[in-house]
Amino acid sequence: MVGPTRFMNLYACFELGIVEALRKEPGLTAAGLGAAVGAKPDAVEQLLHLLVKEGFVALDEATGGYTLDTLGDVAESDLQRVLTFMGMMKTGMLRQLYYLTDSVSTGAVVGLKELYGFEGTMFQAAAEVEEVRDAWGPLAQSETASVYPWFFRSFDVPAGARVLDVQGGNGLGAIMTCQTKGSPGLRVTTFDRPAMEAECLRNFEAQGVAEQCSFAGGDAMESLPGGYDVMLLKHFVDMYDKDEVLTLFRNAHRALEPGGQIVVLAPVYPEDIRDADDYQADFFPAYILGCVVGRGGLQKVSTYRGWLEQSGFEVTSVRAKDPADIPPDAIINRVVICATKAG
Amino acid sequence: MVGPTRFMNLYACFELGIVEALRKEPGLTAAGLGAAVGAKPDAVEQLLHLLVKEGFVALDEATGGYTLDTLGDVAESDLQRVLTFMGMMKTGMLRQLYYLTDSVSTGAVVGLKELYGFEGTMFQAAAEVEEVRDAWGPLAQSETASVYPWFFRSFDVPAGARVLDVQGGNGLGAIMTCQTKGSPGLRVTTFDRPAMEAECLRNFEAQGVAEQCSFAGGDAMESLPGGYDVMLLKHFVDMYDKDEVLTLFRNAHRALEPGGQIVVLAPVYPEDIRDADDYQADFFPAYILGCVVGRGGLQKVSTYRGWLEQSGFEVTSVRAKDPADIPPDAIINRVVICATKAG
Repeated sequence: MVGPTRFMNLYACFELGIVEALRKEPGLTAAGLGAAVGAKPDAVEQLLHLLVKEGFVALDEATGGYTLDTLGDVAESDLQRVLTFMGMMKTGMLRQLYYLTDSVSTGAVVGLKELYGFEGTMFQAAAEVEEVRDAWGPLAQSETASVYPWFFRSFDVPAGARVLDVQGGNGLGAIMTCQTKGSPGLRVTTFDRPAMEAECLRNFEAQGVAEQCSFAGGDAMESLPGGYDVMLLKHFVDMYDKDEVLTLFRNAHRALEPGGQIVVLAPVYPEDIRDADDYQADFFPAYILGCVVGRGGLQKVSTYRGWLEQSGFEVTSVRAKDPADIPPDAIINRVVICATKAG
Repeated sequence: MVGPTRFMNLYACFELGIVEALRKEPGLTAAGLGAAVGAKPDAVEQLLHLLVKEGFVALDEATGGYTLDTLGDVAESDLQRVLTFMGMMKTGMLRQLYYLTDSVSTGAVVGLKELYGFEGTMFQAAAEVEEVRDAWGPLAQSETASVYPWFFRSFDVPAGARVLDVQGGNGLGAIMTCQTKGSPGLRVTTFDRPAMEAECLRNFEAQGVAEQCSFAGGDAMESLPGGYDVMLLKHFVDMYDKDEVLTLFRNAHRALEPGGQIVVLAPVYPEDIRDADDYQADFFPAYILGCVVGRGGLQKVSTYRGWLEQSGFEVTSVRAKDPADIPPDAIINRVVICATKAG
């Protein structure tokens, strides 16, 4: 029950600048810290109790001076990544979670409507609401930077193939396909809502891939265009319920050439949901249902495998990230599932 | 980092009625539960992942049926107490904590202002804002019911003494003093803001203690009235910063007769704040600073002892509740500190 208070107590120590002040001047007392960060010493002392308890900060009882303890050992890049995530949690989740029950009942993110008068998903809100964009943007960028290189190493694209990047947004996936899977005759198409076309084409120009890349507008839930050998479904099947994922898989199957490949990038639950070392069940249901889309959720690899087989695919590989490449604070565990349409 | 999501995921399962539905009909599937509680089966399944992980609920993989596991063993009275507390956390804390940093910087509960346009403490807000009252009222009542009988067993009142119940609110403390410490000549006065007088006197009438009880209006930070042998400071010193608590103690010392007694009821931190079994440091700083008063916080017994001695008192006893009487879900650890003004 102390989860929400622990979270904000810790984050407030960063927001107020208490941790930064201790980094600059170890040994500051509550009075010194209060003066440095503009807060009452009593309140600084109260907030630091938890950090002392956790061993993040040490208190010298004799002098009343605080120093960074284990927090001092955290590399700056690790700390910034965690703080970016905590910032998203504060702005994008803490208040929205209040409406979780309503969101589940209505299948929409009620928190976004209550806070911003916005009807839609967090992704859509990020395009229109500055506060959401500021919280989510840096996270999305660092996620992309850490995930995409691994993703594009995790599947093969035959030379000269025609690739469709489903819900490919601003074209980044298509651009990276050209950069990492280049071959004579390779053609990549970004498929998304028609509203994305202009931005997408600008990015193709800017990255010098306009000759190999194109844009096709449409709704993947309705149908997908034919004539492709490989379809990429990156980072969104977990935002849909079962019936919708099956529709996506079937639409992909219908549109692919025989022998064509579907490549699915998605976070997955462990096969035993009771795995105590995996925190995804602790985080994603409330996050996705209450803060992001109001429906959907992660599945197990075995579930996606079953759904792909039901849709006429044969799974050919499942690749997880090398554990050594996953930072210790990461909650998410992604896989790349490749499957082929029987010839 | 998964604290806020864990909290709301669990609470949403109660709010939606999923747990109640499983109590009535063990073995329901996600589809059956979805129909029973009016939510999509996919979302019910997602929310139940955490409860399965924690062993609260069991899932039969073969049938897809859920049953209460350890949750089924929790006594109804224990469950209701925990749910009352979680309801307070949801309504009174989850959104307010978003403003913790601002609250600490300004020394006021910014969340109450942002949510309700209310300037003041949560106690004051409870008197005016229905949502706050609904969340806080049942908790305050069950706290009072579980704490007051123990409190009044934890100190002595000399026969015929004159007792002042400082910040005694609606008179309940005075009434219980008469009921539990009755003696010929006992007189009890509730001291609080003048605005409380009418309600207080009505309660004295209704409880048949109007002859022994009276009301005195004033501000304890300014001064306390003289002529008393015992002063009760129940449940509020933790809502003040050090300088204010010292002012309260000194005002009490000045007003008490020589040999007079001060009785302080307060939650306290363990002497070693790093005690991993004590969750008060995880909860109270963020709660009191961000959700209740915007200042103050718990102290250790040794700190209160020092402050009482500084103010001219000698501590005569410190009594904690019998651990057997503390429910396992309780975060708070209260003591009764008695101290005497040197004769």
